[in-house]
Amino acid sequence: MVLVTRKEHFTAAHRMHNPDQSDAWNREVFGKCNHPNWHGHNYVIEVTVAGEPDENTGYVIDLGALKQLIHKKIIDPCDHKNLNLDVPFLKGIIPSAENLAKAFYFELKEEVNTLCEQGALHAVKLYETDRNSAEYREL
Amino acid sequence: MVLVTRKEHFTAAHRMHNPDQSDAWNREVFGKCNHPNWHGHNYVIEVTVAGEPDENTGYVIDLGALKQLIHKKIIDPCDHKNLNLDVPFLKGIIPSAENLAKAFYFELKEEVNTLCEQGALHAVKLYETDRNSAEYREL
Amino acid sequence: MVLVTRKEHFTAAHRMHNPDQSDAWNREVFGKCNHPNWHGHNYVIEVTVAGEPDENTGYVIDLGALKQLIHKKIIDPCDHKNLNLDVPFLKGIIPSAENLAKAFYFELKEEVNTLCEQGALHAVKLYETDRNSAEYREL
Amino acid sequence: MVLVTRKEHFTAAHRMHNPDQSDAWNREVFGKCNHPNWHGHNYVIEVTVAGEPDENTGYVIDLGALKQLIHKKIIDPCDHKNLNLDVPFLKGIIPSAENLAKAFYFELKEEVNTLCEQGALHAVKLYETDRNSAEYREL
Amino acid sequence: MVLVTRKEHFTAAHRMHNPDQSDAWNREVFGKCNHPNWHGHNYVIEVTVAGEPDENTGYVIDLGALKQLIHKKIIDPCDHKNLNLDVPFLKGIIPSAENLAKAFYFELKEEVNTLCEQGALHAVKLYETDRNSAEYREL
Amino acid sequence: MVLVTRKEHFTAAHRMHNPDQSDAWNREVFGKCNHPNWHGHNYVIEVTVAGEPDENTGYVIDLGALKQLIHKKIIDPCDHKNLNLDVPFLKGIIPSAENLAKAFYFELKEEVNTLCEQGALHAVKLYETDRNSAEYREL
Repeated sequence: MVLVTRKEHFTAAHRMHNPDQSDAWNREVFGKCNHPNWHGHNYVIEVTVAGEPDENTGYVIDLGALKQLIHKKIIDPCDHKNLNLDVPFLKGIIPSAENLAKAFYFELKEEVNTLCEQGALHAVKLYETDRNSAEYREL
Repeated sequence: MVLVTRKEHFTAAHRMHNPDQSDAWNREVFGKCNHPNWHGHNYVIEVTVAGEPDENTGYVIDLGALKQLIHKKIIDPCDHKNLNLDVPFLKGIIPSAENLAKAFYFELKEEVNTLCEQGALHAVKLYETDRNSAEYREL
Repeated sequence: MVLVTRKEHFTAAHRMHNPDQSDAWNREVFGKCNHPNWHGHNYVIEVTVAGEPDENTGYVIDLGALKQLIHKKIIDPCDHKNLNLDVPFLKGIIPSAENLAKAFYFELKEEVNTLCEQGALHAVKLYETDRNSAEYREL
Repeated sequence: MVLVTRKEHFTAAHRMHNPDQSDAWNREVFGKCNHPNWHGHNYVIEVTVAGEPDENTGYVIDLGALKQLIHKKIIDPCDHKNLNLDVPFLKGIIPSAENLAKAFYFELKEEVNTLCEQGALHAVKLYETDRNSAEYREL
Repeated sequence: MVLVTRKEHFTAAHRMHNPDQSDAWNREVFGKCNHPNWHGHNYVIEVTVAGEPDENTGYVIDLGALKQLIHKKIIDPCDHKNLNLDVPFLKGIIPSAENLAKAFYFELKEEVNTLCEQGALHAVKLYETDRNSAEYREL
Repeated sequence: MVLVTRKEHFTAAHRMHNPDQSDAWNREVFGKCNHPNWHGHNYVIEVTVAGEPDENTGYVIDLGALKQLIHKKIIDPCDHKNLNLDVPFLKGIIPSAENLAKAFYFELKEEVNTLCEQGALHAVKLYETDRNSAEYREL
């Protein structure tokens, strides 16, 4: 089995806030991450596809095509945006690294699997900072 | 001459916006960095002090004390905040990397120079992303 | 499944030495890593927790709470210390990256699992240098 | 289970080209990576061995010995070379990151497993750039 | 004074070879870097502009515009190319990191200085590998 | 002017301790860095030479020769050693990053300048950790 990974970057604002809970609950649970005027990150996303290399190309997936797909589905809607307010596929989702990794996984899944005859989407890992990350795998 | 550098991190939201200009001018000049719902970064700040090592300690400046000073003056007021709205010493400043590096330099200068008998503040370098940085030096 | 990872750092002295073997055996097997006056590293520890995000918080585990726990259990007893001499839970353990990763895993396990209702400790990875690392997983 | 990893580097020229296909097919499929005058990379290889630490040494595998083995089998034949033309064990292989990771895995496997009584080769991960990588695992 | 830096990447093949000298001289002087079938690197270029921030924009130079200029003048002609054979402005230049940094500096200078009313090109730093770099400054 | 830099690594134990002062003074001034059982670092050293590229080679200095010189003068005596006890040219020096950078500069200066007809040693920068560094320049 070969795991192929492409890394991309975007910057965005967000805040940790559950609108179904009180402001006091949010401040207590999320602390400084709940700051009402937002804060932000340089997010790093790593998309991993698992499969067998094609005999004619040596590729599990064309990483240039994967790059374009990540840009179309993730970077273009999220870069220089507010993850709580601006991204249609994130509506109603609390933008923790965990929830973002999962949402990005399912946003990418169908088109990655269509693009890649040799394999399938395996994992999406999201770094919020160099020290904090979350990785989603379906299995 | 010895240059001693301490690196620290903070995360914040900002947008590029000059309130003295029209919205159209701001969109034209700043593009996606003018996005009204903010975006954000994991900022990295490097503070450099120049001087001679003290004979008794081998230090130009105690980097532990410099770390505490950077936290008091820069990280505590800026971390998980909005640089356009929340930081008193940044009021009225367009938060480009250039302007932030300069503002941080002068915010730190007096106390660094008081703390450091062997030298003086030399430079403040601010990374907005891994690819974009600005460094302020007085000379 | 979501894997959440927090990275922390500490610096320590150690030497590779098995006190049950002769000095000659130790020199032969461990080479320069057996140097009697110690050497040291900037260790990097990555702690990974696996689980499902909580619906109310979006967190598998609060990474701020995990950071505090890593500091209490690992960083405070090990930072600026000698891993052969100073750390109670490492007594009798040859401080290879492998053994350290395993010891840190079991030092963290109970409290991580108590802290995290949504999941459990999955792995501890320890970098001795940028080029050498060891990762412990129970399964 | 403990996973031990050693990282090494080499630089090499290559081009993506399938000699069984036409030049037009190669240009269409591989784009700029098919450039006839070659291009190149600073490759990073991470070799992971899985096993149990030895009671006498604390090692799954002596990372110094693993380093020497990686140099003998991979770095010496590949460093400052052309991967399409110069490396005997890569003859007939289209040098994608996927195919290189797989070829390096099998080039290392027998000697790693002989060297390591406590475990066995687990994975070879190859970074072509900081953003593109491929990892081969047998299972 | 503010120094603003933008970092970009490209990959290329090259070899160290002085065509005015004998093959024996080249092998003796350049060693493995003279390998006739080429080798290659993931080059990193850092372009630094020095000046004063504009009052209306907070910018010494618009880093987005600088990025586009670096792509037009350096990345597009050099990426996935052979630096000895393919790049018009490098003809006749031995492609050491030193000579490349200098050639890139003068290739960029006029257009950077035209683009930047607030300042001027200050330095070009080129990393051949993480461990080897050369920086050109006119002063 | 061209600045050429070579980066190398070593690991060592040390402690901050001034033997001319009392133990109480040392504990007060150096805190945890004074720990009697030592601690350690993965040190990174960057050696910068300034000069003009040679017309025949394109080199200010042969970075392979500079690497060998750094190994002979710095890495071999310091790697896997105790910087307070084991290194002849560091006897009597309090091993702060500042003092080490200065000592390494003068240890390298004569042979670098002999090796390099085109230039001279310009700076030695030493990273004690990713966050703490000191750079020595003679001017």
